[in-house]
Amino acid sequence: MRSKSFEGMACSIATALEAIGDRWALLLLRDLMLGLRRYDDLKKSTGITNATLTDRLRQLEQSGLIERRPYQSSPERHEYLLTARGRELSLVIQALAQVGDQWRGQSGEPAPLQFVRAGTGRPVRLALVEQDTGEAVPLSELRVQAGPGADDLVRWRLSKLAGRA
Amino acid sequence: MRSKSFEGMACSIATALEAIGDRWALLLLRDLMLGLRRYDDLKKSTGITNATLTDRLRQLEQSGLIERRPYQSSPERHEYLLTARGRELSLVIQALAQVGDQWRGQSGEPAPLQFVRAGTGRPVRLALVEQDTGEAVPLSELRVQAGPGADDLVRWRLSKLAGRA
Repeated sequence: MRSKSFEGMACSIATALEAIGDRWALLLLRDLMLGLRRYDDLKKSTGITNATLTDRLRQLEQSGLIERRPYQSSPERHEYLLTARGRELSLVIQALAQVGDQWRGQSGEPAPLQFVRAGTGRPVRLALVEQDTGEAVPLSELRVQAGPGADDLVRWRLSKLAGRA
Repeated sequence: MRSKSFEGMACSIATALEAIGDRWALLLLRDLMLGLRRYDDLKKSTGITNATLTDRLRQLEQSGLIERRPYQSSPERHEYLLTARGRELSLVIQALAQVGDQWRGQSGEPAPLQFVRAGTGRPVRLALVEQDTGEAVPLSELRVQAGPGADDLVRWRLSKLAGRA
């Protein structure tokens, strides 16, 4: 199910995907972001089998995205918490939720969750902005170019793009 | 590898993940967004085996994220293009790239790609903003509450969160 074949790819998307694992792992990250912490709660929320749940929690821990902390002894019980690195993935979870909401909306299904700003309760969303000015940029104006870490394969991909522009 | 077990989950993240498939599919979406279109190019770019590549392309087509179009007859050849629905996923791809870049940066690896605005060439990034005003919102101020499509399981998850706040 998990492969190491993304390692060494000069691609930040592959880097992120390698650490995350699979779709079950993303659902676990969603729940941990919502505030669930305990094995039984994560199991109830996702419906994942014990074998898969144990495996994905271990992988997320190995990737440094979550940490396991004892909250009870005899019998020993642990809870799971996002690390700072794991919390950085909230951008990805939020993007998935926003696209999923958009698709559900297109078929008339209402959104299960609303995303708001703490304190004000005003609706928030992810948007593309200019890094320096914060000015909104339509997704259609997004362009890519080689960065300082580009390798031959990255440059080859970009050359295919340039040939068509 | 693929399961239908996310269906019916009142979760927009699960909705999006179900349509996407797996990590290979996300890498294919990345390449299609960059502008690659042909089977051989997608194979070279990702290193996916023929069996997996054929399967993931078929699944992305079935999910309505890509379409297959003939560009040559005798022998017949097809190219693959994102649909409007598929292009909506650029938000997710962009989020993965941004988090991956952040992680690579933390270990001193430079970014393979730079994301800029068409025309101006100014760097862009995804940010959380207030929906109505466009004002920037720190990710730490992101909160969730039940939406109109919340079911019992969604409400239960939120109750776990509320119990701890």
